[in-house]
Amino acid sequence: MSTAEREVGQSLAIEMRELGRAARAAADVLGRVPTEKKKAALREAAAMLRNGRDEIIAANRKDCAEAERRGLGAAMIDRLALDEKRVEAMAAGVDAIAELPDPVGRVIAEWDRPNGLTIQRVKVPLGVIGIIYESRPNVTADAAALCLASGNAVILRGGSEAARSNAAIHACLVRALAAHGLPEKAVQRVPTQDREAVGILLRDMTEYLDVIVPRGGKSLIARVQQDARVPVIGHLEGICHTYVHRGADVDMARRIVLNAKMRRTGICGATEQLLIDRECVASHLPPIVSDLVAAGCEVRADAEALPHAEGAAPASAEDFGKEFLDAVIAVKVVADLDDALEHIRRYGSGHTEAIVTDDSTAADRFLRELDSAIVLHNASTQFADGGEFGMGAEIGIATGRIHARGPVGAEELTSYKYVVRGSGQTRP
Amino acid sequence: MSTAEREVGQSLAIEMRELGRAARAAADVLGRVPTEKKKAALREAAAMLRNGRDEIIAANRKDCAEAERRGLGAAMIDRLALDEKRVEAMAAGVDAIAELPDPVGRVIAEWDRPNGLTIQRVKVPLGVIGIIYESRPNVTADAAALCLASGNAVILRGGSEAARSNAAIHACLVRALAAHGLPEKAVQRVPTQDREAVGILLRDMTEYLDVIVPRGGKSLIARVQQDARVPVIGHLEGICHTYVHRGADVDMARRIVLNAKMRRTGICGATEQLLIDRECVASHLPPIVSDLVAAGCEVRADAEALPHAEGAAPASAEDFGKEFLDAVIAVKVVADLDDALEHIRRYGSGHTEAIVTDDSTAADRFLRELDSAIVLHNASTQFADGGEFGMGAEIGIATGRIHARGPVGAEELTSYKYVVRGSGQTRP
Repeated sequence: MSTAEREVGQSLAIEMRELGRAARAAADVLGRVPTEKKKAALREAAAMLRNGRDEIIAANRKDCAEAERRGLGAAMIDRLALDEKRVEAMAAGVDAIAELPDPVGRVIAEWDRPNGLTIQRVKVPLGVIGIIYESRPNVTADAAALCLASGNAVILRGGSEAARSNAAIHACLVRALAAHGLPEKAVQRVPTQDREAVGILLRDMTEYLDVIVPRGGKSLIARVQQDARVPVIGHLEGICHTYVHRGADVDMARRIVLNAKMRRTGICGATEQLLIDRECVASHLPPIVSDLVAAGCEVRADAEALPHAEGAAPASAEDFGKEFLDAVIAVKVVADLDDALEHIRRYGSGHTEAIVTDDSTAADRFLRELDSAIVLHNASTQFADGGEFGMGAEIGIATGRIHARGPVGAEELTSYKYVVRGSGQTRP
Repeated sequence: MSTAEREVGQSLAIEMRELGRAARAAADVLGRVPTEKKKAALREAAAMLRNGRDEIIAANRKDCAEAERRGLGAAMIDRLALDEKRVEAMAAGVDAIAELPDPVGRVIAEWDRPNGLTIQRVKVPLGVIGIIYESRPNVTADAAALCLASGNAVILRGGSEAARSNAAIHACLVRALAAHGLPEKAVQRVPTQDREAVGILLRDMTEYLDVIVPRGGKSLIARVQQDARVPVIGHLEGICHTYVHRGADVDMARRIVLNAKMRRTGICGATEQLLIDRECVASHLPPIVSDLVAAGCEVRADAEALPHAEGAAPASAEDFGKEFLDAVIAVKVVADLDDALEHIRRYGSGHTEAIVTDDSTAADRFLRELDSAIVLHNASTQFADGGEFGMGAEIGIATGRIHARGPVGAEELTSYKYVVRGSGQTRP
C-alpha cells in the first residue's frame, strides 16, 4: 500500500466514523419523537418522491445507460430501471408505511410482583441500522421508511449500479426530514462506492451500529456473515419445498404447485423443489407437471418421477437443494411424510415449506416438526411475504434464529426495555 | 508451529466439530420432546445432583485446593467453593426450572387474513447454545437446565479452575437425560481446558451453534464479541446509576441507595454511581452518605458533593463510569433531570438505572427517555434479576439490543416460526 492509498483509506475510515457518530446522535433524537411527527415526515417523504419523480427518473436513466454499457444482463437492468409507475409504487409504499401502527412505546407485557413492583416490557427502537443492498433502488425508500417508522436511524449502502438513482431518492427523503424538523442524519447514504466502505461498516463501526441487514445475493450475505462484528439480521436462500402428500386433493395440488413455482420465479418464497408421495405419484404428478410445462417451466425429475412427468428432463443430484430463482423445478418421489421431512431438513434452507394434503394428522406433523421460518398447509409458498401476512412492508424474510425470523417489518426493527415502578421497595 | 502442535490443533478441531454435530442431532430430537418428558428429566437431574453431592463436593475440594496452590484470591475461591448447602441450592434451582411453563410450542400471536389464511407465530427452541463461563460451578447446572427446559442442546465451556466440579455436575445431568431416554448429547462439556477450544467454538462452528452466551468478566465478553462468528447474547458491565431527584423522599432515598449499593456489591445490578440534584444535596446527601459509611462503603464524592459527604474521599474523573463490584460508590451532583440523563447516557452501560422521586412527571421522563435495559422508579437497582422479575432462573442480564434484553431466561432462549393454515389459497 502506498502512502497515498493509506491516506485515502484513513480518510474513508474517518468519514465513515463521522457518518456513524451522526447516525447515533440522530437515533437518540428519533427514539423520542412522537408518533404523529414520524408519520407526518413519512407522508412528506412520499410527497417528495412524487415531486422529485422527474429527477429520480433522469438519474435512473444514467444508471441504466451505464449498466448497459457495462453489459449487465437484462434481468439486472429490469430490477434497476424506474419509470413513472415504479416511482409512484415507491411513494405509495412509503405512504403505506406511514399508516402502520407505531411499535415504539407499545407495552408488550405487564405484570405485578407480590412486593408491589409493577413491571412493563416496552418496545424501543433498535438504534442505528446499517442496510447493505443491491440493484433495486426502491429499497432506498422502503428501508429508510421502515427504519424511520420504527424510530431507527439508518445508514444505507446500495449497489454502485444504482448510485445515481439512490442519491436522487435519498435527497427526497432528507428534504422530508428537514421539513418536519427531524434530524437529516436519520437517513444517511454511504457517500462513496468504494468497496472498502462496506468492510468498515461491517468491522469497524461496532459502537455506532446496532445491527446490519444485508439484502441481496448469496455472496453478499456470505460476506456480511463472515466479516460482521455487529449483529446481523440476514436471510439465506429460499430453497422452498412444496410437498404433495398422498392425502392431497389433486386439483388443489395442481393450483398450489403452479402458483408456488410460477407466479413469480425470482422471489425467495418461490418453490424450487417439489416432493411427492410414492403412493400418489401416478395419479397426481402427470397433471401437475403438465400445468408446469404448459406455463413454460423446466421440470427436472428424479428417476422414479420421470415416467410420470411428460416433458421433464432427468434431475441431477445438484438439482436438489438448489435455489433456481427461475422457471425451473426439481421433482423427487418420497416414500412418506417421514422421508419428506428428512429430505427437507437435509436440503432446505429453513425459509418456507408447504404441504398439500387433506390429512390433518399429516399436516399437523409437518407444521410442528419442520423447523423452517414459515410452514404452510394447503397454501402457496409465494405467501411468504410481510404484506401477505398483514404486517405491512418488510425489509426481507429472515432465516436466522436470533431476534427476528420470517418477515422483518417495522415491528421486528425494535428491541424492548423493562420499566419497573415501585414505592420504595428494597431487595431483601 | 511444530508438526506435533499442528496435529494437536487439528485433532482438537475435529473433536470440537464432533461435539457440534452431536449437539445438532440432539437439538433436532429435543425440539420435539413433549413438555412432561423435559420436566421429568429436569426433576431427575435435581435428584441426581442431590445423590451425587458427595462426589461433587470431593471434586470441588480438589479444584479449591489447586486454586489455593495457584494463589487465586479469596473472592475467586469463594465463588468456586461448593458445600452441602450450595449443592442443595443448585438442585433446588433445577427443580424450580422444571416448574417453569414450557415456552416451546406456545402460540404467541394468531390472526386471520381476508383470504382465509390463518397465521400463528409459534415459539421454537433456538437450537444449539454455546455457553462460555467462569468460576461459579453452579452455572453448569443452571445453564444446562435452562437450555433443556427451552428445548435447546447446549455446549458448556466452564473455567479451568472449576473443571473437576463442572465434570462432576455434568455427569449427574447426563445420567438424568439417559434415565428419561433423552439424548445424552443434549448437554455436553468441552472436554479440554485448552484455550484454543474457545477460539474454535467462537469461529469455526457456525453450522453447529445458533448462539453463544458469554457469562463472566469484561475480558471474556470482549473476546467473545470480537471473535464470534455466531450471534452472541452478551451482557456488558453493569455501571448502574441511582439518581436522587429533588422530589425524593429522604427516607426512601436512604433505604434505596443503601440497598442498591450494599445488599450485594458483586452483582451486575449493584448501584455503582449515585447522582443527586443540586437542590437537595444539602438535605438528602448527608444521611445517605452516613448510612453508606456506617455499612462499610467507601464513598468517593465530586467537589460539589464532598462538603455534604462526611467520611467521603474526593472522586477522581475515572470513578465515574466505573464498575467497582465492591463496597465503593461514586457520587456526583447534577443540576437537574436533564443533566442526570445526559450523564447516564454518557457514562452508563445500558444495564439498569433508578430514579428516586415523588415527582411523577420527572419519573415518567426518566423511565421514557433513558434507554437502558432496565429503568426503575422508587426501587433498588438490585431488583435487576430474572427471579425478582418473576421470570424464574436466568442465564444473565443482556445489555445488547438484539433478540433479548434484560433477564435472559427459558423464554428468551427461544425463537419462533410462522405456521400458516389454508384451504388451497394461491397468491394473486
